[in-house]
Amino acid sequence: MKAVAEPVAAKPLLPVEQALERLLALAEAARIEDCEEVPLAAAEGRVLATALVAGLDLPPWPNSAMDGYALHHADWQGTPLVVSQRIQAGQAPAPLEPGTCARIFTGAPLPAGADCVEMQENADVQPDQRVCFTEPLSAGLNVRPQGQETRAGETVLDAGTRLGPVELGLAASLGCAALSVVRKVRVAVLSTGDELVEPGLPLGPGQIYNSNRRLLVSWLQRLGCEVKDAGILPDDLALTRERLGQLKDVDLILSTGGVSVGEADYLGIALREEGELSLWKLAIKPGKPLTFGHFRGVPVIGLPGNPASTLVTFGLLTRPYLLRRQGVQDVTPLQFSVPAGFDWPKPGNRREYLRARMEQGQALIYKNQSSGVLRSAAWAEGLVEVREGTAPGKGDSVQFIPLSELLG
Amino acid sequence: MKAVAEPVAAKPLLPVEQALERLLALAEAARIEDCEEVPLAAAEGRVLATALVAGLDLPPWPNSAMDGYALHHADWQGTPLVVSQRIQAGQAPAPLEPGTCARIFTGAPLPAGADCVEMQENADVQPDQRVCFTEPLSAGLNVRPQGQETRAGETVLDAGTRLGPVELGLAASLGCAALSVVRKVRVAVLSTGDELVEPGLPLGPGQIYNSNRRLLVSWLQRLGCEVKDAGILPDDLALTRERLGQLKDVDLILSTGGVSVGEADYLGIALREEGELSLWKLAIKPGKPLTFGHFRGVPVIGLPGNPASTLVTFGLLTRPYLLRRQGVQDVTPLQFSVPAGFDWPKPGNRREYLRARMEQGQALIYKNQSSGVLRSAAWAEGLVEVREGTAPGKGDSVQFIPLSELLG
Repeated sequence: MKAVAEPVAAKPLLPVEQALERLLALAEAARIEDCEEVPLAAAEGRVLATALVAGLDLPPWPNSAMDGYALHHADWQGTPLVVSQRIQAGQAPAPLEPGTCARIFTGAPLPAGADCVEMQENADVQPDQRVCFTEPLSAGLNVRPQGQETRAGETVLDAGTRLGPVELGLAASLGCAALSVVRKVRVAVLSTGDELVEPGLPLGPGQIYNSNRRLLVSWLQRLGCEVKDAGILPDDLALTRERLGQLKDVDLILSTGGVSVGEADYLGIALREEGELSLWKLAIKPGKPLTFGHFRGVPVIGLPGNPASTLVTFGLLTRPYLLRRQGVQDVTPLQFSVPAGFDWPKPGNRREYLRARMEQGQALIYKNQSSGVLRSAAWAEGLVEVREGTAPGKGDSVQFIPLSELLG
Repeated sequence: MKAVAEPVAAKPLLPVEQALERLLALAEAARIEDCEEVPLAAAEGRVLATALVAGLDLPPWPNSAMDGYALHHADWQGTPLVVSQRIQAGQAPAPLEPGTCARIFTGAPLPAGADCVEMQENADVQPDQRVCFTEPLSAGLNVRPQGQETRAGETVLDAGTRLGPVELGLAASLGCAALSVVRKVRVAVLSTGDELVEPGLPLGPGQIYNSNRRLLVSWLQRLGCEVKDAGILPDDLALTRERLGQLKDVDLILSTGGVSVGEADYLGIALREEGELSLWKLAIKPGKPLTFGHFRGVPVIGLPGNPASTLVTFGLLTRPYLLRRQGVQDVTPLQFSVPAGFDWPKPGNRREYLRARMEQGQALIYKNQSSGVLRSAAWAEGLVEVREGTAPGKGDSVQFIPLSELLG
């Protein structure tokens, strides 16, 4: 998808943060507003459409943090106390008889009238079953107060939160059986290039297997997208028009390949006939060319075709775009300052993302950072960022982005 | 699930690494040997059963890394060269006519007889369409040699590799349409405790909502397990026996709750009748009690019931166990040395895992690290490790484990 008519050579390279800023603004302007109510079991990986507000206090009542004895601390004056009831978790206790204590277990509700729990290790049970305490007592000891974690009415998850196991567990703890989530983003994935053949088929002269389709379809599914796999586009204008015309109900057309090929860009021609496209030359490596545009009003992102470039431009630019389309505010992956375990030869004018691993606290890079390879990415645990104009040496601090932050 | 008869109080606490070592040895001894062939689209999240060996060179033939002109470097002697063919990606070129050059595009095969590619920016096309070059040429320039990434016969993914989008893309690039993967681990999830109520139902006195079931079921699914959701076990021995007897074809029984309650441990009783259980007191916080045993030959892991303890003991101990059952060798999450953005009050005798976020390069911890809460975990981006006997202060180095490393 090259923007054939543009004088691209004259443009300065677009810094990564500016490209991201533009993409996020475009995503914000095309936020998916539709939402749906789904049971918790179906909400994993989705984005919360409306804030989750606690409907009850957590814990719902004061409870014991220990196995032991509940009492009013002032009732212990050195005289052994009778055990007047026994409270397991799940039981509703009677009010505590004054001057007595209650056997209580972790998580069980504190009886009315008690203000502390002494752990069983600090209790002496007398032969007559009355109990003495060996350590000083005070109000609040080993008690988890009602509402300690959450008060009814508090917002516990903001709209725009991505829902993983932890968030779903939290929703369950508040009694929610269903959540309102943003509709899934529907992404059509297209590969371009007459050289591409699907795995399992024989490879002819000059052909290579299509790896980006599998990479992107699996990745998009992990990100909670609904994928329309539109296969490989033939290098033919009429067929390209036909295939594009068949794409209905999609929120994004994501293509790979074609952007760095100067001619025979049928996808670009067909898209431009009914929309607009612009080519961004990014200060990023692997990567560089990225196309953004619209086709019949549907946003289009065109990624470079070689797999390592696809990986980096999808992970660092398209993933945040897709999350923001669903209203996710925090789209920045975690990154860490780590010492470089390598010497970078010379400063460049593009930001490099090197496939790297952590070994003994240092970032090591894959020997061959050629942009055509996925093997380096399978070996890698993360990406090391080498900024424009810098050439870090061994021991210098570099930023490390774990792949797990990008893939999920 | 308490091991009622054991004199647990006398035992020293078991350090986390020793507990992990034991669990991994148990997992190794119970490795799942069954495997199955699945198409790439179904292999995401699975574990490779047999090494993936390249069946072809990658790239399959030398190709151009640039849009430009292919030639034999010695043919450029200052006399403009005729362009004798034009090679797009996907085309099989004819051998290069000696003394000429070929127009070539990125990814297209190098014609026999050519040994370099000069990028179009360094080429002057004359009015007669012949081409001059403005920079010195050398053999290999801008050529990606055949087999540069991978040679046929090389192992590109070891058995035991977890398959994510990158690994599947790599397999696709080698033409594989299906992979041999380890059978999914079948995990029965049980919650114990009469106080537990499922979300969506009304909450009675003394009751709380069951959050661990949702936390664990979603998490196990993300880890590629087949989950048998066995619901909440009633505090009744006969019913417990009956429910356990109904669990068929499972590789692990995972229960939560009950381990720190000293009495009415019907699950423990029922399990011990037809197996064995031992209680490990771990030097971990939140956490501490963990049960491991067997029931009719099926391994059993019992996690503590409060959600933050469940999260930590599942993430740090059960997750690696489950991965190792499938033959995954590298089960250690990435962790990073980061400066503490907090003062820890005093050294403890258990290793603490604090729910933390990274802010401006420092790890901040959630204000309430009470073990009962999931809200802290939803706020957190990772866990900060505070080792036994240490009390890091602001600026001291602590280990940070991103949650994304544990959740996927």
